[in-house]
Amino acid sequence: MDGEGDGAQGLEEQAAAAAEAARELRDAAAALAARRAADEDALRRRAVALDADVRRLQDSVAPLDPSTLDKVEEELERARAAILDSDVAAFLPSKGNGKFLKKFVGPVNVRVARKEDKLKVKDEYNNYRDRAAYMFLLFPSTLLLLRWWVWDGCLPALAVQVYQAWLLFLYTSFALRENVLLVNGSDIRPWWIYHHYLAMLMALVSLTWEIKGQPDCSSKQRGVQLFLRWAIMQGIAMHLQNRYQRQRLRTRIALGKAKRMDVVAGETAGVEGQLLLLYPVLFVLQGFEGYVGVLLLQTAWHGLTSEWQVIVCGILLVVMAVGNFVNTVETLALKLRFKAKMKRTRHRQEPGQGGPSRLHQN
Amino acid sequence: MDGEGDGAQGLEEQAAAAAEAARELRDAAAALAARRAADEDALRRRAVALDADVRRLQDSVAPLDPSTLDKVEEELERARAAILDSDVAAFLPSKGNGKFLKKFVGPVNVRVARKEDKLKVKDEYNNYRDRAAYMFLLFPSTLLLLRWWVWDGCLPALAVQVYQAWLLFLYTSFALRENVLLVNGSDIRPWWIYHHYLAMLMALVSLTWEIKGQPDCSSKQRGVQLFLRWAIMQGIAMHLQNRYQRQRLRTRIALGKAKRMDVVAGETAGVEGQLLLLYPVLFVLQGFEGYVGVLLLQTAWHGLTSEWQVIVCGILLVVMAVGNFVNTVETLALKLRFKAKMKRTRHRQEPGQGGPSRLHQN
Repeated sequence: MDGEGDGAQGLEEQAAAAAEAARELRDAAAALAARRAADEDALRRRAVALDADVRRLQDSVAPLDPSTLDKVEEELERARAAILDSDVAAFLPSKGNGKFLKKFVGPVNVRVARKEDKLKVKDEYNNYRDRAAYMFLLFPSTLLLLRWWVWDGCLPALAVQVYQAWLLFLYTSFALRENVLLVNGSDIRPWWIYHHYLAMLMALVSLTWEIKGQPDCSSKQRGVQLFLRWAIMQGIAMHLQNRYQRQRLRTRIALGKAKRMDVVAGETAGVEGQLLLLYPVLFVLQGFEGYVGVLLLQTAWHGLTSEWQVIVCGILLVVMAVGNFVNTVETLALKLRFKAKMKRTRHRQEPGQGGPSRLHQN
Repeated sequence: MDGEGDGAQGLEEQAAAAAEAARELRDAAAALAARRAADEDALRRRAVALDADVRRLQDSVAPLDPSTLDKVEEELERARAAILDSDVAAFLPSKGNGKFLKKFVGPVNVRVARKEDKLKVKDEYNNYRDRAAYMFLLFPSTLLLLRWWVWDGCLPALAVQVYQAWLLFLYTSFALRENVLLVNGSDIRPWWIYHHYLAMLMALVSLTWEIKGQPDCSSKQRGVQLFLRWAIMQGIAMHLQNRYQRQRLRTRIALGKAKRMDVVAGETAGVEGQLLLLYPVLFVLQGFEGYVGVLLLQTAWHGLTSEWQVIVCGILLVVMAVGNFVNTVETLALKLRFKAKMKRTRHRQEPGQGGPSRLHQN
């Protein structure tokens, strides 16, 4: 009896102590949260004011003579680098989640506070693109191979539909992840995200597209076949792009502590050769994308098929091909202009966002 | 000349000052980040240790005599409430993002740190469910009405497909948002999330389902019609559920500063009447869901249709109906047990998670 009484006594005391400790911890956590909010507010005010200052100065340097201009611009670029390439960036107002992300995930904060975490998010995105690129190559190749060897020239509807559903998932996840990158200050061109919205729509429409079977598969499934071949090319282009992007980011992480100028210079240095291969591949891909779109529209025009899906997919492919082409040319032009400027003034930095960084499409 | 020289001088100085200020700010931000990490680590260690302590004590109270047991349990429940219903909760290890969220959005942190923000996320989720419930009611009703008045008893494929695509989006966003809630410590039953995965699959499969037109629509589109009618009932049930959930959360926010016990008591007080209506509706809905599934399977069994989509949708509907029924009964049983306990000991709290809170399905 006594022993049990002691145990009860002990438990009562321990429970009371735990409750007291919990109350203390609750107050400590609330105090920490309040202090943190105050600290962050103060830093945010300083960051916003300084950012506005630097922008104002950058806008007013034009009338200076060249040698002073160089010096002032370099100083300002250093200031911008200290703001944007550090933990300060997290305190500048962000673009907010964007409608797309909000629709799918709700108004949750997906912003990463620390600079190294930001680079990790981008690295993970590149890893994801890598894995997706293998699937992008393997999935349609397998379908086309099985079509010749096993399926007697006739793709079964289910196999194609599984592929289309996978595309829908893939494009949705790309669009969501890119929106997350955008919130975290990525300089991805908006077109590549719109492009993924269009690709989502196309995957959705193609899911409702009736895959016709025997007889006479080869003519009825011509659109699907063209699409699969284009997807294989896409997979190859994605691999090239990923190698290029990865090397850029690796350089950037490695040079994390260096000045912005060095980072940009280092970024473009190692990848020149890759770009010479990448651009022709991209242009051929875009040409083929537009060609497949026109072929689909022609089939509809000549009355060979009455399905609205054919027309919509045709239009979407042409729009995506044109948009991709325009944006690739714009990126290329920026890169060339940047390179020329780098040659002209070895010791000056590129104003603004540090040159075109994104060359990204799929 | 002099004026310009002065201006240049001024700009140079200002630029140098801005660069210096930016460096200082960068160091301040890095210091703040480091201090914050240290503070949080210390608090995390305390929170984890105390949480383990409370759990250990809760497991060892069983042999106590009833009156001491009540006192000790109340004390421990207070400790748990101080940990879980405060900013401390953010420092306990979370379940992590889960595979689904990771697949779509990547490994981004969607955890909300502050308690009030958490309640906001939940409130926003409820708002979203509210808006979705209206669409859930309107969309299929409009389709069925137009079918009678305009479309001559024959649903056009495109209209149904737009509806199915909307369902796919809706279920995906529900699943994503619920995964976010889960990361933030929601006690949502896992089944309701699995249920949304199954519903996503069904929407996807139904998109590939060929909608047959004239002649003889009424028999060919029987499955679609049944599905639409079930969706209308679903919309009504969602409205009832939303009212119930909203009232619970409102009470919880209003009683935010009160003790956990009061919160739970207040939560269930106002909604008893609604539950009397909600449960019968839910059971009828689940019965109808299973019935539609069985009808689809019968059509396939009797060879009236050869499409695999019919079989898959039938199986999915039956599985969802059974799962929903089991989980609703379990929730109801928990609620009744909780109510009985509340009556028995007016002044004691419910151990564990504060009683079953989720009654959630769509």
